[in-house]
Amino acid sequence: MSFSPLIRQLIDALRILPGVGQKSAQRMALQLLERDRSGGLRLAQALAAAMEGVGYCKRCRTLSEDELCQQCADPQRDDSLLCVVQSPMDVFAVEQTGFRGRYFVLKGHLSPLDGLGPEAIGIPALLERVEAGGFSEVILATNPTVEGEATAHYIAQMLVPNGLAVSRIAHGVPLGGELELVDGGTLAHAMAGRKPISL
Amino acid sequence: MSFSPLIRQLIDALRILPGVGQKSAQRMALQLLERDRSGGLRLAQALAAAMEGVGYCKRCRTLSEDELCQQCADPQRDDSLLCVVQSPMDVFAVEQTGFRGRYFVLKGHLSPLDGLGPEAIGIPALLERVEAGGFSEVILATNPTVEGEATAHYIAQMLVPNGLAVSRIAHGVPLGGELELVDGGTLAHAMAGRKPISL
Ligand SMILES: [Zn+2]
Ligand SMILES: [Zn+2]
Repeated sequence: MSFSPLIRQLIDALRILPGVGQKSAQRMALQLLERDRSGGLRLAQALAAAMEGVGYCKRCRTLSEDELCQQCADPQRDDSLLCVVQSPMDVFAVEQTGFRGRYFVLKGHLSPLDGLGPEAIGIPALLERVEAGGFSEVILATNPTVEGEATAHYIAQMLVPNGLAVSRIAHGVPLGGELELVDGGTLAHAMAGRKPISL
Repeated sequence: MSFSPLIRQLIDALRILPGVGQKSAQRMALQLLERDRSGGLRLAQALAAAMEGVGYCKRCRTLSEDELCQQCADPQRDDSLLCVVQSPMDVFAVEQTGFRGRYFVLKGHLSPLDGLGPEAIGIPALLERVEAGGFSEVILATNPTVEGEATAHYIAQMLVPNGLAVSRIAHGVPLGGELELVDGGTLAHAMAGRKPISL
């Protein structure tokens, strides 16, 4: 069977969404057409508006159509803490922890093999922000991957000599899992980072 | 954290897609914004074009922007077989089996409690089609649910007295599963519908 051209184009276009394969794209397309055309049109408009209208916060560089994102514009936040992350999604993750300081969003991690050096991911802008900012601590919350570690290490090397308190989020065993399922590197970090218990 | 209004609207709009919850909608929105804005715009255009342009095939009533869908327009198909299904997605499923006759797509199944009688789901149009069509067999491929069975039974009652060969797709154990996992009703159908093996 072939679907008609407009349906085929819609199915193809839906497959650019992360996690959507051929079968889900078909189900999505036909379900919208059969049951919710006004929802489909609303989605079309929301997509066009966001793709064309959303830029980057000029202060923290997260995604935002306003000059300052809501985190930067909020006067209630703790101006002494700066959290550095790799992507706008990570801002969302860190917010969930209750952190209410300021952010700086890198464009991913250092990746010399792909030609992504400090400039490409925004480290000079981060350094400027730190110089201007009067932060008492910079928290490096890049991903716990080889590249994220290397990026955090590179940034620490730029900041620590200036007498700034720079921290890295802790590595350890994730909550709720079983110890035997934790990989060796993580467990080694957890052992090395053990803390005294005070009763 | 709150996303900026355009991002929030996009996340909300993505949730109308079947199977997409808050978390996937966020991931989809941010990933499109970060990595594939032209893909996002293409999706917006494909959605708008399909929602506004796709209608129903005037012969079989499946979704199509052309007056006749590809199955109806194809001169190579077997004009003696008509397969009746409940939805455009089912046309796709039956095509996968290799069936190459004609189709008629009902608008769902009979559902008297929801006020959906024969007229609402298109049975009069189906009867017209059958009268005009010269089919040697009408295959009822509505869903193997209580409502699908009732709908098939209702249609059979309209057609069989006219001397037409009317068939229902077989019920039985699905391929590849384990017998102990098959529900009792299905297994009873499979037993009752058993066939002699010829070697
Ligand atoms: Zn910002
Ligand atoms: Zn058709």
